[in-house]
Amino acid sequence: MDLSPAEVRLQCRQGTFNFPTPGIVSGFLQANLVILPKKMAFDFLVFCTLNPKPCPLLDVTKVGNPEPEIVATGADLRTDLPRYHIFRNGELHEVVTEITDIWRDDFVGFLIGCSFSFEAALMNAGIPIRHIEEGKNVPMYKTNIPCNTAGKFSAPLVVSMRPLSPSDVIRAVEITSHFSKAHGTPIHFGNAAEIGIANLDAPDFGEAVTVAEGEIPVFWACGVTTQIAILQAKPEIAITHAPGYMFVTDVKDEYFCR
Amino acid sequence: MDLSPAEVRLQCRQGTFNFPTPGIVSGFLQANLVILPKKMAFDFLVFCTLNPKPCPLLDVTKVGNPEPEIVATGADLRTDLPRYHIFRNGELHEVVTEITDIWRDDFVGFLIGCSFSFEAALMNAGIPIRHIEEGKNVPMYKTNIPCNTAGKFSAPLVVSMRPLSPSDVIRAVEITSHFSKAHGTPIHFGNAAEIGIANLDAPDFGEAVTVAEGEIPVFWACGVTTQIAILQAKPEIAITHAPGYMFVTDVKDEYFCR
Repeated sequence: MDLSPAEVRLQCRQGTFNFPTPGIVSGFLQANLVILPKKMAFDFLVFCTLNPKPCPLLDVTKVGNPEPEIVATGADLRTDLPRYHIFRNGELHEVVTEITDIWRDDFVGFLIGCSFSFEAALMNAGIPIRHIEEGKNVPMYKTNIPCNTAGKFSAPLVVSMRPLSPSDVIRAVEITSHFSKAHGTPIHFGNAAEIGIANLDAPDFGEAVTVAEGEIPVFWACGVTTQIAILQAKPEIAITHAPGYMFVTDVKDEYFCR
Repeated sequence: MDLSPAEVRLQCRQGTFNFPTPGIVSGFLQANLVILPKKMAFDFLVFCTLNPKPCPLLDVTKVGNPEPEIVATGADLRTDLPRYHIFRNGELHEVVTEITDIWRDDFVGFLIGCSFSFEAALMNAGIPIRHIEEGKNVPMYKTNIPCNTAGKFSAPLVVSMRPLSPSDVIRAVEITSHFSKAHGTPIHFGNAAEIGIANLDAPDFGEAVTVAEGEIPVFWACGVTTQIAILQAKPEIAITHAPGYMFVTDVKDEYFCR
């Protein structure tokens, strides 16, 4: 039986939950976490605002307050994720299971939607998701499409790819158009070279998947874009979730879809 | 024949256009303007992020740069609106037709979607808009619904009201669900008292309209919410468009609807 979002967060807080979150608590939005000092927070918030497809904001905490009041009242971003990455000056410094000891009064937490929500909706509609069928991480690629920049934050748009039949492409566009807080509609389909992807079999992140005869690669904006922007901005300190170890919100997938 | 958005902005810049913008350049998004010093900009941006229905952000300018690069390349927020309101310490100080002389290097411009876009879509679908039929400004009301606060920015949700038949209510929800950058779906319909509105005939802003037998009042989040938040935050200086004298963007209504 599914755990509730609050139960998952409590187990994380108690140190007894340390697994990737895909498939956990089906039906609830999961979120990418980014924590930055206030000094960098305005430019990062502008970056997300100007690039809503890769960076759909679900919540922004009050300065110094680790509670995401909009999407998970009572939760604590310092302890309620299974695993964190700590970046210093744009380099991965440490992987930890809680950040209470390094939390600061000037930290701002950002929660950003992820693709799990629309993947669940596609599967509920009978549309197969290849990387899930093949038990792999979704293939992700850097494109030649520049994001809108904000201060020190800039990045090429990173996309995830799912191969679909033509009829499923149409239905996938229709369905994901309801999930603007989970990357929304695709940004491209078909010829990968048109968006600067040389070889589908060599993703920049994740794992290559089979594209069958007659299937069309479909490309969605991806939250990894945010991480590249952070690496390039080189903040003195930045904290994110560990890939796959997301923050589980109290918001139902379908509720926050617009 | 319609002017182009660029032609309207040029005439504003030349001082030859000084009219309200509703109905001008049909088919293009018009925007509410808010200009604040950088010192207040982060909290205001968080306020908009946490209250996307009343405050759907279309663009945020780089600090000190009056060009809204996303929605109107080459435009100048200092001159390209017909009329501005200058607020000092939360009070209307001056009404002017350009702000070149008081623009500062620390100013940030915010462009926020407005209801004209979805009203055009409703009328295109054959749904009558009462205040337009009656040649009035849309009736607007303060509700008892508090917005999410951000720093000094807080406000009750302000709504606009349009009376519709039950079948048009359903179609209006369906249509406006595609206009998340123009306040999106309604927040309430029917009993106004449930959201703290005592008397539909006494709006807080705009003018009362006829609600015919069998019609249902339908309430949408309204951009005036933003102005109340600014009045309450009392920034040393804030500049907005004059109500009805909006910024005309180069973005087609239908394009930016998600």
